[in-house]
Amino acid sequence: MPHSVLVSGGCGFLGSHLVDRLLLREDLETLVIVDNLWTGSRDNIAHVSDPRLSLRIADAESFTTSQHFDEIIHLASPASPVWYMREPARTIKANIGGALNLLSLLRPGGRFCFASTSEVYGDPLMSPQPESYRGSVDCTGPRASYDESKRCTEALLFEEQRVSGLDVRVVRLFNTYGPRTRIDDGRAVSNFVCQALTTGILTVHGDGSQSRSWGYVDDIVDGLERFFWRDSIAYRGPLNIGNNREVSVLGIAKFVCSLVPGSRIEHRAPIPQDPTNRCPDLTLVRQVLPGWEATTGYQEGIRRTFEWYRRRIVTEDRSAANA
Amino acid sequence: MPHSVLVSGGCGFLGSHLVDRLLLREDLETLVIVDNLWTGSRDNIAHVSDPRLSLRIADAESFTTSQHFDEIIHLASPASPVWYMREPARTIKANIGGALNLLSLLRPGGRFCFASTSEVYGDPLMSPQPESYRGSVDCTGPRASYDESKRCTEALLFEEQRVSGLDVRVVRLFNTYGPRTRIDDGRAVSNFVCQALTTGILTVHGDGSQSRSWGYVDDIVDGLERFFWRDSIAYRGPLNIGNNREVSVLGIAKFVCSLVPGSRIEHRAPIPQDPTNRCPDLTLVRQVLPGWEATTGYQEGIRRTFEWYRRRIVTEDRSAANA
Repeated sequence: MPHSVLVSGGCGFLGSHLVDRLLLREDLETLVIVDNLWTGSRDNIAHVSDPRLSLRIADAESFTTSQHFDEIIHLASPASPVWYMREPARTIKANIGGALNLLSLLRPGGRFCFASTSEVYGDPLMSPQPESYRGSVDCTGPRASYDESKRCTEALLFEEQRVSGLDVRVVRLFNTYGPRTRIDDGRAVSNFVCQALTTGILTVHGDGSQSRSWGYVDDIVDGLERFFWRDSIAYRGPLNIGNNREVSVLGIAKFVCSLVPGSRIEHRAPIPQDPTNRCPDLTLVRQVLPGWEATTGYQEGIRRTFEWYRRRIVTEDRSAANA
Repeated sequence: MPHSVLVSGGCGFLGSHLVDRLLLREDLETLVIVDNLWTGSRDNIAHVSDPRLSLRIADAESFTTSQHFDEIIHLASPASPVWYMREPARTIKANIGGALNLLSLLRPGGRFCFASTSEVYGDPLMSPQPESYRGSVDCTGPRASYDESKRCTEALLFEEQRVSGLDVRVVRLFNTYGPRTRIDDGRAVSNFVCQALTTGILTVHGDGSQSRSWGYVDDIVDGLERFFWRDSIAYRGPLNIGNNREVSVLGIAKFVCSLVPGSRIEHRAPIPQDPTNRCPDLTLVRQVLPGWEATTGYQEGIRRTFEWYRRRIVTEDRSAANA
């Protein structure tokens, strides 16, 4: 049966990779991307020429159409602290307002997929974090617009499942990196790679001992593809998806330095309420998606990301020189 | 200086008591109540005839006016589990959508007050709960629409304070009871009183050992009045307001039984995710509002509530008999 799919945030880093996968589906009839290009970019889908795809430049919370969709994948939200901390109200609108609005565009019986985040665990008091962990989020803190709007959107969707039988799929994504991250994204991997390629000085906040599990985007999108549409799964979420091999921020910086001779690390003030650790408990995802694993090691993943940035930065330099 | 004030949810239980206090202010020029009468009732303000007051029947999330307000007090939300569990999306819209919309009606430099809840602590792992406790809320659970929309609205307001200097006041209210609670509110005190006055059978969920701190409405509104407008206070919240003398649900039921000879208690199945305890740490409020205390004991408060219900139920019976 031909499917119509809407992806909000489909011009974003993660969204555009997921769009590539969706376009491989033979049962896909139409794919509508709704994106306001706040943190997404047309560049991320510039390589696509597929008549099934259309792009609508609009906010997820106010997009209207007479069409109804078989599947909606709601990704619209900034994901980097520097972006969401700058515009907290807009972040809340994108997540919750987006979900409320897009729910009205789902055909009866359709499926609503949502990318939640490991940030729902806040600064966790247990590690690794299983889905049953209720988290330790300061709802009055400087990261709260993102953390709480993701938590509240989860609440909305599971409540709609309870009261009206909505078919939901909710994943909690841990740190994800790879090609198509914005140069000014502001998170560790892209920061370090861009700094290494430009100034040669990598800035590490605090002592860099805070650890993250770094998931390479191709692995993460493998998991999303299987959970959102490919596998037949009774479980609806929340489902941790990520890499559980923790590496410190300093470890990442050192590895990036090793790729660019002459680059070096400088320490800056710590970021307020930066979680000390974040690592997925993958017990559940191994049951739900047997065989799935984030297999790309951080060194391989960072090398690929580095190559992508290098080509982009070199191209931009050439364009600037020719301008 | 004459003040214009908007109260969303001003026809509700708590809202209508707060409206009574607001109308005692000599600096109050206009008072607009925005209420969709979902859980509120015109009856709650029927005793008021004050030319400064106007009622607008509208949802807080979509109310529009050309007027701007010096103070906005956002109370619009159901507060009883049976009500918010029935319409979770609407609950989220009232809280977060309401706050987002009402913020646009605040004059620059105005004050935005919000009634958050002890439910932000979820089923707490520590007792009593200080404001710094990050809580233990299951954001996928059956109470999540309320708990998470209150948490996310707090997030929105404290973030707006951070990015744009918004003057916020946020309280976390613990269980509050008293006259003007709906007969079908569904929470313990009003349930027990109404059951005692009608069927004579008081239904207790589980064994009734779950405890709450029961705050009589007059005491709670004393605290709100001081924090929202009367005292000059630098602290903006969150601030616990409640009674810290815990009484079990069964203890309340037994006391109500003692008021109506022949009434008795029946036990029913426990409510899912009913918190086992909830008790405010009042250290902070004693510093912020020196001298304030919820002094009305539960026996005195329940007697007053009982009298109010008795008069109402007798009046309704007479009206029915005369109909």
